[in-house]
Amino acid sequence: MTWREKLHEVIYEADTPAGKRFDIILIIVIIFSLILVSLDSVSSIHDSYIDFFYISEWIVTILFTIEYILRIICTKKPFKYIFSFYGIVDLLSTLPLYLSLLIVGNSPLMTLRALRLLRVFRILKITKYIGAGNRLAVAIRSSLPKIFVFLYSVIIISFIVGTIMYLVEGPEHGFTSIPRSIYWTIVTLTTVGFGDIHPVTPLGQLIATFVMILGYGIIAVPTGIVGAEYATSKPVKDNTQSCFNCGEDNHPDKAKVCHQCGYSLNKE
Amino acid sequence: MTWREKLHEVIYEADTPAGKRFDIILIIVIIFSLILVSLDSVSSIHDSYIDFFYISEWIVTILFTIEYILRIICTKKPFKYIFSFYGIVDLLSTLPLYLSLLIVGNSPLMTLRALRLLRVFRILKITKYIGAGNRLAVAIRSSLPKIFVFLYSVIIISFIVGTIMYLVEGPEHGFTSIPRSIYWTIVTLTTVGFGDIHPVTPLGQLIATFVMILGYGIIAVPTGIVGAEYATSKPVKDNTQSCFNCGEDNHPDKAKVCHQCGYSLNKE
Amino acid sequence: MTWREKLHEVIYEADTPAGKRFDIILIIVIIFSLILVSLDSVSSIHDSYIDFFYISEWIVTILFTIEYILRIICTKKPFKYIFSFYGIVDLLSTLPLYLSLLIVGNSPLMTLRALRLLRVFRILKITKYIGAGNRLAVAIRSSLPKIFVFLYSVIIISFIVGTIMYLVEGPEHGFTSIPRSIYWTIVTLTTVGFGDIHPVTPLGQLIATFVMILGYGIIAVPTGIVGAEYATSKPVKDNTQSCFNCGEDNHPDKAKVCHQCGYSLNKE
Amino acid sequence: MTWREKLHEVIYEADTPAGKRFDIILIIVIIFSLILVSLDSVSSIHDSYIDFFYISEWIVTILFTIEYILRIICTKKPFKYIFSFYGIVDLLSTLPLYLSLLIVGNSPLMTLRALRLLRVFRILKITKYIGAGNRLAVAIRSSLPKIFVFLYSVIIISFIVGTIMYLVEGPEHGFTSIPRSIYWTIVTLTTVGFGDIHPVTPLGQLIATFVMILGYGIIAVPTGIVGAEYATSKPVKDNTQSCFNCGEDNHPDKAKVCHQCGYSLNKE
Repeated sequence: MTWREKLHEVIYEADTPAGKRFDIILIIVIIFSLILVSLDSVSSIHDSYIDFFYISEWIVTILFTIEYILRIICTKKPFKYIFSFYGIVDLLSTLPLYLSLLIVGNSPLMTLRALRLLRVFRILKITKYIGAGNRLAVAIRSSLPKIFVFLYSVIIISFIVGTIMYLVEGPEHGFTSIPRSIYWTIVTLTTVGFGDIHPVTPLGQLIATFVMILGYGIIAVPTGIVGAEYATSKPVKDNTQSCFNCGEDNHPDKAKVCHQCGYSLNKE
Repeated sequence: MTWREKLHEVIYEADTPAGKRFDIILIIVIIFSLILVSLDSVSSIHDSYIDFFYISEWIVTILFTIEYILRIICTKKPFKYIFSFYGIVDLLSTLPLYLSLLIVGNSPLMTLRALRLLRVFRILKITKYIGAGNRLAVAIRSSLPKIFVFLYSVIIISFIVGTIMYLVEGPEHGFTSIPRSIYWTIVTLTTVGFGDIHPVTPLGQLIATFVMILGYGIIAVPTGIVGAEYATSKPVKDNTQSCFNCGEDNHPDKAKVCHQCGYSLNKE
Repeated sequence: MTWREKLHEVIYEADTPAGKRFDIILIIVIIFSLILVSLDSVSSIHDSYIDFFYISEWIVTILFTIEYILRIICTKKPFKYIFSFYGIVDLLSTLPLYLSLLIVGNSPLMTLRALRLLRVFRILKITKYIGAGNRLAVAIRSSLPKIFVFLYSVIIISFIVGTIMYLVEGPEHGFTSIPRSIYWTIVTLTTVGFGDIHPVTPLGQLIATFVMILGYGIIAVPTGIVGAEYATSKPVKDNTQSCFNCGEDNHPDKAKVCHQCGYSLNKE
Repeated sequence: MTWREKLHEVIYEADTPAGKRFDIILIIVIIFSLILVSLDSVSSIHDSYIDFFYISEWIVTILFTIEYILRIICTKKPFKYIFSFYGIVDLLSTLPLYLSLLIVGNSPLMTLRALRLLRVFRILKITKYIGAGNRLAVAIRSSLPKIFVFLYSVIIISFIVGTIMYLVEGPEHGFTSIPRSIYWTIVTLTTVGFGDIHPVTPLGQLIATFVMILGYGIIAVPTGIVGAEYATSKPVKDNTQSCFNCGEDNHPDKAKVCHQCGYSLNKE
């Protein structure tokens, strides 16, 4: 077993103690990084600990850079990783800090801030560890087409009701345009109800009443669908075995040989 | 196969490449038209591109006028189309622009604006393309009577609670009349909670607490119903074949002869 | 068949054309009466049509008084009706107007208004006509004990969270007392969110975040229960046959003899 | 049967009339105590009845102190009770008043108030009496892991959307930091919608629209899960028999001998 195969076992798999430890450390660093990003945005905290945030950010970024390079080195098919969803997330959340060094002089602050906040996408790295293949995900996936039809109806209703409210209430009561009226309709239909815009005329309030009851009634639709799909779904096993040779990773934990290329999975 | 039959195949059916292409173009024009209507209502955008909106609107309207005329020409039973739901939608959303030319001089602005906004109903033309016959629609249709009983109870509760809140809070806290108190009750019961009116007295807040918990509890009712109906419903097949001779359109995609009049469906 | 039996058939039953017509007229008068009560409370409308409201109200009240007297006359067991739920509703919603004549001089306006608004309970008379015995009611009834356990948990959570928020936010941010904090907690937990009180401190907002996610999660509980109960419930038949002799009314529409006392139901 | 065994029967069990009476009295005292705590926090009521609250609080506290001591005396394994959940709740909600006597002179008011409000946790004593072992609790317990996965997704979405909204709206529209933006996202996603912060720019409102529809859709997930788990769960029997010898309490009501230590349960 070469050092690259050993590294592959630790980084890409989770069926050995070392592999599990690596995953836990990674999650801790990600969460630490997310807390950094959040607190850094609170101006009073940012101003008090400006050096701490700067140094911590560089340490975290260098750690993720090392992880990124190791992931590329220890696989036989580096491009499969680089262009995978997690590969792109890793790159997007690591690169911006280096870029900020280059462009800091001649770029607007907004762009820079947006770039640096790409770090927040590191949170997506955690999704890999929460049983993406479980029964819940199966139920949601099979509900999606019906939920889209449902959301589509919500949009049609919002469009028509939005236009009517724009006519009934008009700009003088905050319904300044059709897009804004549609925004209000969705705020109402989904029972959010911010209250930044609200009907003032009796007729507008009557229509609002119907919209609210409608929204209250149709929430039943996606709920019923997911429930029914979940009830008929079957649990799926997670797996953490990944082939060093071809990258295929749908093997059960006790598999000994890759079912794609026949390469041995559990070398001594 | 005459040109009218060919046109019928393209406009009314979706089982040929030309028919599918026609549907896609139609949906794109509808969406473009809806975006036009929406942006036109934003006064800053309207003022900047007044000519663009005027010309675009006329182009779209003329396109839909041509579609309307073609639909009437290429069917043997034009009145079946004209008085169908989609026929009326087509007319209502096309005619107003022509009317606005006639009445622009001596009519109040409000009526004119309302008339022109009828264009928004074009969105209903899309509903034809989103599988009206699918399993979801079946479940909703069979849930409707029970959901109406449920909504009816919501109205009874709103009426009684609305009257009590009108007495308890009174006009000095915004509950100026029973209809307005009913409006507040529905805002609360459906968990929308705009906050434009809210109880101030301790007794009013106590009643509000019960209303909120009640609303939180009874949302379970329609949800449970739709879920149970959906679980026992069966999927239904869509179909896109329409008879040129009699207009009947419940044929499977591979049908060769109309099951109503025996007219051939797939002519060469 | 005596005139009292004929009257009983019309007023208490709904399986003859006359009985159905009576029910429909009753519902129309009730709805008319409710609209009167509502509009009367709008001060601008009240002031303009003060005579119309006064006269209409007396006409409606006299109609219901006649109905009340007829119901007592045409049954062999008048006390069964008088002390039934609908008997009490009928009395409560009719009597106040007569009382208001007696006490108008020496009574506070508030008491008088409250008394006269008892008319609104007439809405409960309609519940008799909306299939109280249907499958939905069965599911809700069998869900009730579990929903109470659920609501009980909601109250415990509200009490504890309310006390914590009272400590964290304090009177200076609107959480002036524990009852008021509990009110806020229920507003938040049920996802109503008026916004009249809202957390201002970061810690308060963090707690609010947990409360909202909790409320979002536990709404699933009553919904799941009602859904499951509904799925296992069986439809129940409505019936509109009532025995003139003993008042029993659980007969199917085609029953010929009362199953309690053997009295004939369908006399010619 | 010794007096300690008799006391154990009354305090720890509920299968004798005396045991049931003890439970009911306990619940009444707890509810009275909770009302005291609540009303005491309303400053106007507190100022008017300051002596009444002081004396009542001491009476209630002494009652609970006696209960606490009796519970320790009448069991053979006092530490099992003391370190159990309810033992800690009992201690935490009784001790603070005694502590307040000691520290009243030299402690900040806030700490003192917080300490005394620990009384509110007495409400948890009631949970023992509401069928913790029933079918509902089973369904919720088996749903928990899936609901945590769901809540986890909610947090990931909130983090990403919160960061985007922070960039789009910025501090000038109330989105002053990422934690605050995450707070807004959760307020919106859970359909609470306080309205204390709300998007102002068109782009922000567009994103808000998507968040609301998303929140409206994903509430279906926990609901569906609990519903499905509840449908497949089985009812569980409650039991109120507790062994005097070893403290084990999972016996059916008619059990005669403890299934852990063989000690007799129903002595005469």
